[in-house]
Amino acid sequence: MNDSSYIPVDGGVCAPQGFLGSAVSCGIKKPEATRLDLALIYSTEPCVSAGTFTTNRVQAACVKVSREHLRKGDIRAIVANSGNANACTGARGVEDARGECTRIAGILGLKPCEVAVCSTGVIGLPMPMMRIYPKFPELAEGLSRDKGHEVAQAVMTSDTKEKIIAIEFMVQGRPVRIGACCKGAGMINPCMATMLCFITTDAGISRDVLELCVQSGVKSSFNCITIDGDMSTNDTVLVMANGASGVTLESPEDIYAFQQALAYVMLELAKHIVQDGERVTKFVTVRVTGGRTEDEAKKAAEAVAKSSLVKSSWNGNDPNWGRIIHAVGYCGAKVDEEKIDIDIAGLPACRGGVQADTPSDDLRQAVQVPEFQVDINLNRGEFSHTVYTTDLSPEYVDFNRSEYAYWNQAKADGLTR
Amino acid sequence: MNDSSYIPVDGGVCAPQGFLGSAVSCGIKKPEATRLDLALIYSTEPCVSAGTFTTNRVQAACVKVSREHLRKGDIRAIVANSGNANACTGARGVEDARGECTRIAGILGLKPCEVAVCSTGVIGLPMPMMRIYPKFPELAEGLSRDKGHEVAQAVMTSDTKEKIIAIEFMVQGRPVRIGACCKGAGMINPCMATMLCFITTDAGISRDVLELCVQSGVKSSFNCITIDGDMSTNDTVLVMANGASGVTLESPEDIYAFQQALAYVMLELAKHIVQDGERVTKFVTVRVTGGRTEDEAKKAAEAVAKSSLVKSSWNGNDPNWGRIIHAVGYCGAKVDEEKIDIDIAGLPACRGGVQADTPSDDLRQAVQVPEFQVDINLNRGEFSHTVYTTDLSPEYVDFNRSEYAYWNQAKADGLTR
Repeated sequence: MNDSSYIPVDGGVCAPQGFLGSAVSCGIKKPEATRLDLALIYSTEPCVSAGTFTTNRVQAACVKVSREHLRKGDIRAIVANSGNANACTGARGVEDARGECTRIAGILGLKPCEVAVCSTGVIGLPMPMMRIYPKFPELAEGLSRDKGHEVAQAVMTSDTKEKIIAIEFMVQGRPVRIGACCKGAGMINPCMATMLCFITTDAGISRDVLELCVQSGVKSSFNCITIDGDMSTNDTVLVMANGASGVTLESPEDIYAFQQALAYVMLELAKHIVQDGERVTKFVTVRVTGGRTEDEAKKAAEAVAKSSLVKSSWNGNDPNWGRIIHAVGYCGAKVDEEKIDIDIAGLPACRGGVQADTPSDDLRQAVQVPEFQVDINLNRGEFSHTVYTTDLSPEYVDFNRSEYAYWNQAKADGLTR
Repeated sequence: MNDSSYIPVDGGVCAPQGFLGSAVSCGIKKPEATRLDLALIYSTEPCVSAGTFTTNRVQAACVKVSREHLRKGDIRAIVANSGNANACTGARGVEDARGECTRIAGILGLKPCEVAVCSTGVIGLPMPMMRIYPKFPELAEGLSRDKGHEVAQAVMTSDTKEKIIAIEFMVQGRPVRIGACCKGAGMINPCMATMLCFITTDAGISRDVLELCVQSGVKSSFNCITIDGDMSTNDTVLVMANGASGVTLESPEDIYAFQQALAYVMLELAKHIVQDGERVTKFVTVRVTGGRTEDEAKKAAEAVAKSSLVKSSWNGNDPNWGRIIHAVGYCGAKVDEEKIDIDIAGLPACRGGVQADTPSDDLRQAVQVPEFQVDINLNRGEFSHTVYTTDLSPEYVDFNRSEYAYWNQAKADGLTR
């Protein structure tokens, strides 16, 4: 099965059978705001579910609660908000996250542990529950099959585009669907990001197998992107499989087909995140080959993708291979300077650690595009690794200079001094 | 002995007895430029010497040659240029670096291995030797005791200020001097930086002891600073001790006094580098205490000091403790979220992982200054670590967008296509 076997369909997380979505506006950031900031995803059927969470030692209250619920069993609903991360909020934050699950479960007739809760936004301020709880009845009443886009919009923070995908593919001659949405634009780094991703599927699958598919998919998608090198406290990927397609995945072939399709969906969304990175102008694929180990290739790719100097040069359309090789040099792997080859946008820039023959004007011309690839061959072995990343722009820094507005509102709300 | 025992004196590397300096303009970056870009430091007496170099696996030709010369014995002269790093220049670069040592040695009546060579500037372009070699006679003829400032100026790249220091202190009731200069403003990271530092002293000291003093001094100074997290290919610290003061350091007390004085000089210069970081507006001391190990404290301090989001918030005068704790969380150490206390500019910002009582306006007011300290207590043990760093500004990114000018000149010089 290849990418062309996946038929794009509309509807995001609501595209698979048996999944409903809803979104409302609570004014979490400021009371007068009208943008959607609270979403609900619900499966009309019982689900098998799996998830992965941030490896940051500082974890949001919602991550703690959702992780606990997934450990207890399977979830069937996800409530998610933007505007406040419910992170570093102590016992009060955990109480708020549990309160959300309990109330949503009450309305939907589920057990509280069948609900996962996700939050994204500013760190360190208590959630304005006085504006969130009153919206729960409206949120639940609004559940329908045509709100996949609204769900995606409600979790956006600095995202400029909604990130949504759904595909249909054939298993046992019958259609199976995977639908998903995600958000993320800053605090984006390998090992999960300020990133929420919700995936639904109407395939029938066992929990063990679903967990394996999620782990392998995340490894080659969300763990291969970096925008600013900052890892968030809230990163979450949640997958719910309700079997409503009537197709149950049991044979190795079917499971493999599903695993590939899930990985495809995850990688597409991961690329969407990078392409929508905060104030970025370039989407750059850094591919390192010739590593003696996979770890070696990974270290080199990540060092290049995270170097402020390399990223600044991309912002200036400067095909600066000198900065690229300097980042490879400090990546921590024992690379051999005189073996390193670098191609930029398909043109040789460096051969054996020194400049290649390509005229510098040709290289400059080649990077005057919104997307290009950097190929680095360490020429030490057979392992490779790819990282998807961006440039660093003056506008990124400017955009991230202050979160005053959040604090001012929290003060008005009596949530901080 | 404390800082007040060190009497500041003028003259930089020429302040200690028996050291001469010189600097000329070669037009390394562009032929018509008149700024100083080539320097020479020379001891009229034989020296004991020590040095440390970048740990980047990609190392400049000059680093390779100087390291070799130091391994063979002691150096007595240093030739250094700005405008070209002589890095990633292959066999030709090594030939150029050796050529410099040989010619300078010839003029000064030394062996080539008694000369160290240093370069700083753009990576990947051959050195324009046709403009450097012809200036060597003038450079050597200009040697004098009053050119400490010119030497410091000649190695500046994006530095906006010359970085120079010299002190006098008493050992055995007699004056000993240490003089130094350094350069560095970008590619600055722990484990040495795009950083050259030349230190001279008229103390008499054995090589073993000098090497130990240099290692310990670098560890608590140049290895504790970060501006942009990028480690250079050229970092070098060289120390020459010629004994011309007539004071020989042999007793543990005298050696300790010298070691402290050397560490003081290195830390002052390291702070100068951070204060002159490329387009920075803040000098921030990140002090982590309460680590279970020193490594734990170091990881936490470095993660905070290198976070693009934290640094962007400092640029915006935003005392954003949420971003600080998020960086502590992903630093790689097993910190306990609910034990973390954070003070910003002396005010409690976070206690036990949640917001402290300090009014947000007070915190904002406190960071509206060019220098402040962030204190992070992990409350897990007794170890601490301090990192000196800066904010990240839109102007930094803008400044580093392109090195076109270098490549254009190299093309005109026939050194690249």
